[in-house]
Amino acid sequence: MTTFADIVNPQAIAAARQRIGADVRHTPLLRLPGAALGVACAELWLKLEHLQIGGSFKARGMFNRMRSLPIPAAGVIIASGGNAGIAVACAARALGVHCEVFLPELSSPAKRAVLAGLQAQVVVGGAAYSDALAACLLRQQETGALLMHAYDQPEIVVGAGTLAAEIEADAGVPHRVLVSVGGGGLIAGVAAWFEGRCRVEALEPVGSPTLHAARKAGAPVDVAVSGLAADALGARRIGAIAWEISQQHVAASHLLPEDAIRGAQQLLWSELRLAVEPAAALPLAALRCGAVVPAPQEDIALVLCGANFELAGLS
Amino acid sequence: MTTFADIVNPQAIAAARQRIGADVRHTPLLRLPGAALGVACAELWLKLEHLQIGGSFKARGMFNRMRSLPIPAAGVIIASGGNAGIAVACAARALGVHCEVFLPELSSPAKRAVLAGLQAQVVVGGAAYSDALAACLLRQQETGALLMHAYDQPEIVVGAGTLAAEIEADAGVPHRVLVSVGGGGLIAGVAAWFEGRCRVEALEPVGSPTLHAARKAGAPVDVAVSGLAADALGARRIGAIAWEISQQHVAASHLLPEDAIRGAQQLLWSELRLAVEPAAALPLAALRCGAVVPAPQEDIALVLCGANFELAGLS
Repeated sequence: MTTFADIVNPQAIAAARQRIGADVRHTPLLRLPGAALGVACAELWLKLEHLQIGGSFKARGMFNRMRSLPIPAAGVIIASGGNAGIAVACAARALGVHCEVFLPELSSPAKRAVLAGLQAQVVVGGAAYSDALAACLLRQQETGALLMHAYDQPEIVVGAGTLAAEIEADAGVPHRVLVSVGGGGLIAGVAAWFEGRCRVEALEPVGSPTLHAARKAGAPVDVAVSGLAADALGARRIGAIAWEISQQHVAASHLLPEDAIRGAQQLLWSELRLAVEPAAALPLAALRCGAVVPAPQEDIALVLCGANFELAGLS
Repeated sequence: MTTFADIVNPQAIAAARQRIGADVRHTPLLRLPGAALGVACAELWLKLEHLQIGGSFKARGMFNRMRSLPIPAAGVIIASGGNAGIAVACAARALGVHCEVFLPELSSPAKRAVLAGLQAQVVVGGAAYSDALAACLLRQQETGALLMHAYDQPEIVVGAGTLAAEIEADAGVPHRVLVSVGGGGLIAGVAAWFEGRCRVEALEPVGSPTLHAARKAGAPVDVAVSGLAADALGARRIGAIAWEISQQHVAASHLLPEDAIRGAQQLLWSELRLAVEPAAALPLAALRCGAVVPAPQEDIALVLCGANFELAGLS
């Protein structure tokens, strides 16, 4: 029987890296002694993925899907109020493809303006995200546009995995990689690349514990979502691909308190001048609050996954 | 007769790189196609030096001077309200050395708090910077502390040059390097490293034209200082070292309008999620406003020199 591991694996990720090499940025890896951020380990490898096109890692998966499949005349379509929508709009603009993004009425005018600025057609409708998704799916049936998902399609996960391949190309295999989880597309890609060659650990805010709840229940379950990182990490249920791959290659899952996340976000600015969204601060928060305790000789990779937020929140 | 070029040169810079290699960060180089920022050239190489310890390139020179000379029991002393003061305080803390920073009464309480947080002894006195400098020099006579200058000491310039050595180690020699100028320590170090192997150009805001005025007058002259980058680029006169070296190895000097600088600062955030101070935006501003017109095949290095500013100014 085919499993996701048959199509989401290092070979597929290496091929994706070739496919999207000219589309996305090879983001920098900032290597620091652990002591620079008060962590008792050898080196911290900060993958500055928030400098990616569209301000988050999502562009990797979107470009990979759009470069892997035929794109209908109707273009691409997605329901997303966050980084995935921005990434689809960026990729569609770069490839000259029509793009529709469905958002609920609650979405901020600022986000709609960003999407419109990227030449996406913004469709606002329904009170909740699930309403926007329903409208998006109906519309996709009408137009035949290529449906893009924020995290649970193989090309999306494989694209995210190219980030891990870049870390290895730049610095080798770390002892541990710390990754934030929303729907799980990023951690699934990272775990699929390393295939157990290093310890991959999942981090979630207490307010949106999709993977943690699934591991406890033994299967993906719906969770309530709240809190400061809900915007970027606010999937309600871990993706099917992430669930399969994480069972094999994710060593642990940790829930982090909001104040630790906020403190790590502030520290990244005050010590390193890295302005990132709360979701990107979870890896450092995990080390600072003691949820993850490294050995002294470890090199630890931290994925800084995005920077789509209001700067005012940092000052 | 000895010239500064006898002691500020590639050999000295290579030695400094060894000397301070464990003290400072090898900052990342972000390579992008010119089109990503609307520039008609091959590649833009962004040297993310604003991620350096203390939030600016200044730490390189400060560590280099403190590692090159005996440090008296009284420690180090400087008059500075900006990045140089922060860098000295960072270096002194790291090396366990006493540090006094003299500031005028006009300096912001926020800056004093940053310096105090770095365990520097802050001495506030005098209405203007020149008064703080006079007090600093008197105090140095009393204590024998090692006097640190923001830009016009050989070890400081040599230390700054290590930034250029890193660019070459990471990506080779670009066709052109664009560097902001205040007192000229940074551009002197960069020009001394490349020694004419690429075109080095100087950028200043119209409100603080120290090098431009010196080139026009044929010698360093005092200038009035004003405007948005005055804080970081607000030296009143080009340094003697920078003057000598720039005459030989700096190909051109450009004055940039404030709105171009502000626009480039905004673009670095909106397109790349790089939060930098105005002084760090001059290289991109020069390309965007047409002050510098590259050939299509050029690779251009842009030094993003600092990020010590209030984030609120960007949002």
